[in-house]
Amino acid sequence: MGNTVKQLAVLGSTGSIGQQTLEVVRALPHRFQIVGLAAGKNTDLLARQIDEFKPDFVYCQDEKALPPKAEHKLLSLEEMAGLPQVDTVVIATSGKAGLAPTLAAVKAGKNVALANKESLVMAGEIVTNEAKLNTARIMPIDSEHSAIWQCLKGETQPASRLILTASGGPFRHYSPAQLNGVTAEQALRHPSWQMGSKVTIDSATLMNKGLEIIEARWLFDLPFDNISVLIHPQSIIHSMVEFIDGSIKAQLSYPDMRLPIQYALSYPERLPNPQLPRLDWSNIRELTFEQPDLDTFPCLRLAIEAGKRGGTCPAVLCAADEVAVELFLSQRIRFTDIARVVEQTLAEHKAIAHPALEEIMAADAWAREKVTQLASGDNQ
Amino acid sequence: MGNTVKQLAVLGSTGSIGQQTLEVVRALPHRFQIVGLAAGKNTDLLARQIDEFKPDFVYCQDEKALPPKAEHKLLSLEEMAGLPQVDTVVIATSGKAGLAPTLAAVKAGKNVALANKESLVMAGEIVTNEAKLNTARIMPIDSEHSAIWQCLKGETQPASRLILTASGGPFRHYSPAQLNGVTAEQALRHPSWQMGSKVTIDSATLMNKGLEIIEARWLFDLPFDNISVLIHPQSIIHSMVEFIDGSIKAQLSYPDMRLPIQYALSYPERLPNPQLPRLDWSNIRELTFEQPDLDTFPCLRLAIEAGKRGGTCPAVLCAADEVAVELFLSQRIRFTDIARVVEQTLAEHKAIAHPALEEIMAADAWAREKVTQLASGDNQ
Repeated sequence: MGNTVKQLAVLGSTGSIGQQTLEVVRALPHRFQIVGLAAGKNTDLLARQIDEFKPDFVYCQDEKALPPKAEHKLLSLEEMAGLPQVDTVVIATSGKAGLAPTLAAVKAGKNVALANKESLVMAGEIVTNEAKLNTARIMPIDSEHSAIWQCLKGETQPASRLILTASGGPFRHYSPAQLNGVTAEQALRHPSWQMGSKVTIDSATLMNKGLEIIEARWLFDLPFDNISVLIHPQSIIHSMVEFIDGSIKAQLSYPDMRLPIQYALSYPERLPNPQLPRLDWSNIRELTFEQPDLDTFPCLRLAIEAGKRGGTCPAVLCAADEVAVELFLSQRIRFTDIARVVEQTLAEHKAIAHPALEEIMAADAWAREKVTQLASGDNQ
Repeated sequence: MGNTVKQLAVLGSTGSIGQQTLEVVRALPHRFQIVGLAAGKNTDLLARQIDEFKPDFVYCQDEKALPPKAEHKLLSLEEMAGLPQVDTVVIATSGKAGLAPTLAAVKAGKNVALANKESLVMAGEIVTNEAKLNTARIMPIDSEHSAIWQCLKGETQPASRLILTASGGPFRHYSPAQLNGVTAEQALRHPSWQMGSKVTIDSATLMNKGLEIIEARWLFDLPFDNISVLIHPQSIIHSMVEFIDGSIKAQLSYPDMRLPIQYALSYPERLPNPQLPRLDWSNIRELTFEQPDLDTFPCLRLAIEAGKRGGTCPAVLCAADEVAVELFLSQRIRFTDIARVVEQTLAEHKAIAHPALEEIMAADAWAREKVTQLASGDNQ
């Protein structure tokens, strides 16, 4: 604590969370230093980030596209996640590509600021076991899990319930028939959060909230029946925790990912950052709440079911959803087909309990193939 | 911790908070034991409480009215507050009668579960200094301060703002003219909390919230400018804390004093108690917020001003308000006169900075006399 400068590796630095992580670092240069940057295909932005933050280590999916004379060493994602000089590894890589570096980081006993959902959804048991074995700390960057983590701070007894809030997405009060005709463009317009396209579609189907329930199960070690979802369209209360005496704590702020990012980076301290907005209560008249509609938004139900079945099922859910969202965004299936093909894929999956990493990867590959088949069958 | 049985002395056991404290003890008999009971004039109820809880020590304002052969020893309030076998002293005595036992309890280094507002409002500097000197812990029983205390749990840095919520009382949207005609009966009908009559009238004038600001200043050591009030008619969010990074934590529950009472008694643990209601989110559609109207409810402004002036001013505020409320309840002054006579009294008071206890008591006596004069002047 005190005034040490934390050394960070940011994996997925050109994505939405990665860029906002660098905004936090930019605002607090005396507290954070970038040791490593890793990105996928957005090489132009990565090159600019390298110019600004001068990391010692870089990963780029397309190495040849980087300026040749840069003064950094090229590493793999896993190597970067385990660098001895790194205090905190930010895993902002999207999709299943986040799993391997997350595992490398927990095996190296790092503080892991985790924005990647797939790591815990696909391999929650393996990742959390490795974290325990290697005394790595997994620090959630999702606003919901950060809220829960903040509410649990200082509490020494298990929570009796986690209440994940959800904006409800852009189609909150749509009928099933209306949902059928939804376009990608409509689905990409989220009412309160600015996020990447995969997460935005997952927010519209409520799959995102389902994945977060599975993440919460692993992060906070609570049974699925003690985790519920509450629709809260204003996205001011980011989640809540109910304790054994019935008392509830909630965490509130405007929807701005820089706060949970900064909290994970600065933990256990909090740091003043004038760029973070403060709630203006003279402009907040009401916070509203609704129960989620599991019939109209079956993805939430599917995720809870997959989580409860456990084993390879969440990996299948995750992979099937990822492919289904791509198919929807490229206009090859309808919005409501996302849930349908995910459900069919899960129904046909022969789950393996307590799977090894290879079995998870095999289930992932199987699910991707299966969804593609189901979708092309539709198009014939 | 673990399964020890905490020994309690309950001062003011026949009042609203005292009775609810005994309800908590009744629900958790394996965790709490009553060593002492103290009451004022409600001797019948005290006698029944003695029968049920069999305390070793008793205080009764009218000792002769108690059954003569009871198997307990009679003590003064101060003696009871300092009993060596007592772990936690619950100060539920109302009015300035709570100050002396509070001081005795902190001087004895006790855990002090404090529901009495006057102790901190009149003598916050003395009480908190004595608590520090004697490593006594003051544990608030007010729902607002309990909420703040719960939100601060585990946080190691000072809060940047405390946001005390207020129901707004039964006359929230009344005009000054409407307030003028308010009767005691109307003012005693509080929309969300069941409380004693003094506190209920103070809630209707917002003086209660003003006194709570002064208490919060001493309990949490924050300047007045960093403590604000937010009207929240549903009384579900009991207060909030904003931290230096802009993140806010709130504590929520139905309005039920047994929760903050139990939290103070069980601290640092939480205990399951099936009698405590849990928020049913399927029935909570909205939480609303408004800024307080300091023009229509000047008591809140008067309290903040008295708090900022400091010294003997809060004691004068407190005493003047107590007498004014009595005068209103006995229909000798109007509702809006409460603020007026308190304001006049404060205006005429020559404040003493860092007062000794005797100076506080003298200011208290002066204020009571002054309000009575002002009110009888009105009636001539």
